[in-house]
Amino acid sequence: MSTLDNVLATLDADRQGALDRLFDLLRFPSISTDPAHAPDCAHAADWLVAQLQDLGFEASARPTEGHPMVVAKAKATRADAPRVLIYGHYDVQPVDPLNLWQTDPFAPRLVEAEPGRPQIVARGAADDKGQLMTLVEACRSFRANGGLPCNVTILFEGEEESGSTSLPAFLAANGKELKADLMLVCDTNMWDRDTPLITCMLRGLVLEEVVVKGASRDLHSGMFGGPAVNPIHVLSKIVAGLHDEAGRITLPDFYADVPELPEEIKAQWAALKFDEQAFLDDVGLSVPAGEADYSVLEQIWARPTCDVNGIIGGYVGEGSKTVLPAQASAKFSFRLVGKQNPQAILDSFRAYVRKNLPADCEAEFLSHGASPALSLPFRSEAIQRASRALQAEWGREPVLAASGGSIPVVGLFKRELKMDSLMVGFGLDDDRIHSPNEKYELSSFHKGARSWARILAALAA
Amino acid sequence: MSTLDNVLATLDADRQGALDRLFDLLRFPSISTDPAHAPDCAHAADWLVAQLQDLGFEASARPTEGHPMVVAKAKATRADAPRVLIYGHYDVQPVDPLNLWQTDPFAPRLVEAEPGRPQIVARGAADDKGQLMTLVEACRSFRANGGLPCNVTILFEGEEESGSTSLPAFLAANGKELKADLMLVCDTNMWDRDTPLITCMLRGLVLEEVVVKGASRDLHSGMFGGPAVNPIHVLSKIVAGLHDEAGRITLPDFYADVPELPEEIKAQWAALKFDEQAFLDDVGLSVPAGEADYSVLEQIWARPTCDVNGIIGGYVGEGSKTVLPAQASAKFSFRLVGKQNPQAILDSFRAYVRKNLPADCEAEFLSHGASPALSLPFRSEAIQRASRALQAEWGREPVLAASGGSIPVVGLFKRELKMDSLMVGFGLDDDRIHSPNEKYELSSFHKGARSWARILAALAA
Repeated sequence: MSTLDNVLATLDADRQGALDRLFDLLRFPSISTDPAHAPDCAHAADWLVAQLQDLGFEASARPTEGHPMVVAKAKATRADAPRVLIYGHYDVQPVDPLNLWQTDPFAPRLVEAEPGRPQIVARGAADDKGQLMTLVEACRSFRANGGLPCNVTILFEGEEESGSTSLPAFLAANGKELKADLMLVCDTNMWDRDTPLITCMLRGLVLEEVVVKGASRDLHSGMFGGPAVNPIHVLSKIVAGLHDEAGRITLPDFYADVPELPEEIKAQWAALKFDEQAFLDDVGLSVPAGEADYSVLEQIWARPTCDVNGIIGGYVGEGSKTVLPAQASAKFSFRLVGKQNPQAILDSFRAYVRKNLPADCEAEFLSHGASPALSLPFRSEAIQRASRALQAEWGREPVLAASGGSIPVVGLFKRELKMDSLMVGFGLDDDRIHSPNEKYELSSFHKGARSWARILAALAA
Repeated sequence: MSTLDNVLATLDADRQGALDRLFDLLRFPSISTDPAHAPDCAHAADWLVAQLQDLGFEASARPTEGHPMVVAKAKATRADAPRVLIYGHYDVQPVDPLNLWQTDPFAPRLVEAEPGRPQIVARGAADDKGQLMTLVEACRSFRANGGLPCNVTILFEGEEESGSTSLPAFLAANGKELKADLMLVCDTNMWDRDTPLITCMLRGLVLEEVVVKGASRDLHSGMFGGPAVNPIHVLSKIVAGLHDEAGRITLPDFYADVPELPEEIKAQWAALKFDEQAFLDDVGLSVPAGEADYSVLEQIWARPTCDVNGIIGGYVGEGSKTVLPAQASAKFSFRLVGKQNPQAILDSFRAYVRKNLPADCEAEFLSHGASPALSLPFRSEAIQRASRALQAEWGREPVLAASGGSIPVVGLFKRELKMDSLMVGFGLDDDRIHSPNEKYELSSFHKGARSWARILAALAA
């Protein structure tokens, strides 16, 4: 048997051990956006450090202004082996609305969704703890079979779900130590349960909160309604005015730097025969709601969007309260493509908001992060090697695709360290990431680890 | 000295006792809209029953589907004396945002706002516990001086701030017992600190909550944004479309049953020289925001309005979450005037909402109460007697005015028992009712009790 065969056999033999370790990691409620969970983030980081030290990595949790970075290093068996940087994040999204979870989000369990299809259910099962552990388990198996084929540096951050606030400063200070030939990112999805996928395009993301302020205090709507400006009305008008009837965003010049999709990519995607109806059906919808002239897949992968992710103002408890609130706020997110400039979009949005403020209203802006869109070379050597490795594991050629979500870290490393990223992941579209009852297929977890073992071997071949 | 002089002297002598009793009542956190506070509402009712029994009333707390009704009766010294029904409410508004209160809302305290101007600070100080106790204290003093000049029935409800849900059924079952020649309502304001006011017109109120539902679950905005309809956008468009550029409400025929103000009333109100700038300045505003063609006083007293009192959807915690929510909701209130029909307005509003729902969206409607506007005879005998009594106490003729807020109970009694109401109260516009740090002037409390003593004597004269 080759080394790779042994590595894959060890992964098969230790399936239960791998699952137990993932469950241990899932039990930490490492919600990075909520300051109350800072200790849980630190505990998750410490647990990862201990795991990696156990695998022979030189590992530590490095403090930041926010949550710690887990950094680990191990040498390959061959001195001239390629250098890879493995990136993942151990933090998770908030769990609200908690009442919609069938069980405790931080008590992981195995659920048989249908016969022979077990799923791991917990917050973070797919995003990103399950995914990052596929890489850790691949490394574990190599170590049990003679050693690593690549020189491996690991960076697991704890702030991906809250804007990766500490990452730029950390990269600036530690870039030399982290620099490698290629970054491996395990935070993406498969095409479907049987077809692997390599993500070659990523949308950018601008996150901006707006607080509209009117009167100096909450007022009685019977005593002041009419003469006193209502910030909820003002904010609603701002939200309503952002899209036209055709679903296009109305900010001036918003589409100036948005490229039309190259014909070859358009043709490749059309050949995928993406089932729009099933995609919408699955979440209780029937009619595509976005830009009228684009397919659903194009809308998600290659068109910019704007969504309000949250809005609040006034009395929101049970029953009624005739209050005219002093303020109302909304959290906006813009997905960017092509050469759209995050700062220019932000400036344009703020100008639009200010222009729509009536007398006596002010707006406060809170930025929660901004990153540009990214395209990676479709036909690079790394992608070709990874394609062959994935085909060997899954028996199908991987889809070379785009992603609607953002992975800001990929852009950051490209910008700061001139590193390209190989984005391979084993999530599925129905994993309910960011929603109640998040899950990760057990097959994704196991075959994901096997896939990474094959890719690491292929990169070093 | 006349009986009235003795009654007034007793009120003057027992100022501290009256204040202690009011403080006892203010300590009950009787928030009617929140089911968690049901026991507190019951305790407040029991306390009032004990007080009234102590004054020789036959009093009891009557159970309802919601919070109990306090009903009490006492005969006048003269058998042919007029019969009055005193109405008030012992429930209060919620206290959020709690962090804006300088001290515990249910730990009443006396604050010297400026030298010689003490104020009672607590939730319910003005709305309506302080006001209803002015009537109870007037009755107490008559009892200490020979007996009541009128036959008095008292009805204190515990659901005024949550739509008076149980009141219609209670009136239907107990109307005969409650029927009187006149209802005395102590839930209104003075013109200013020195000028009493009798409220002769009241706006109606329609309270309607709308829940807009899209996908069957919360979605990741990066994976679904664009193709999946966003309920926050849909709801914002509905809110934004309710007013035109001139501040008018856009529902079809909304103004059909809205009368223009009679010239004599318009002239009387104009003569009041209401200081619009000071009214707005006081709450940090500078420009009237309502219908362009009407004065602020006309907007508040005699024009219909629509305000969103609360809106919520998606993630509203700290930081960001790229969620596309399954639903968003808003609480709307319409203030009605003239002959506007609450049911017709409600139907029209619902039709408007449904018309603005895109494919895949549904609306759920939750009604929180509806009542028509009300006008009482300006020159009735009761109002003339009350005017003279108020002039004797305050040294100024009272303003015959309208009120922007609603007192649905006044309409209900008019409809069900054909009873007119005398609406006199001693609140001030800056009492911060429904807001943090609600207060009631100590002079309102003391001279309010003296005023009611004079009015009760005048009605029986």
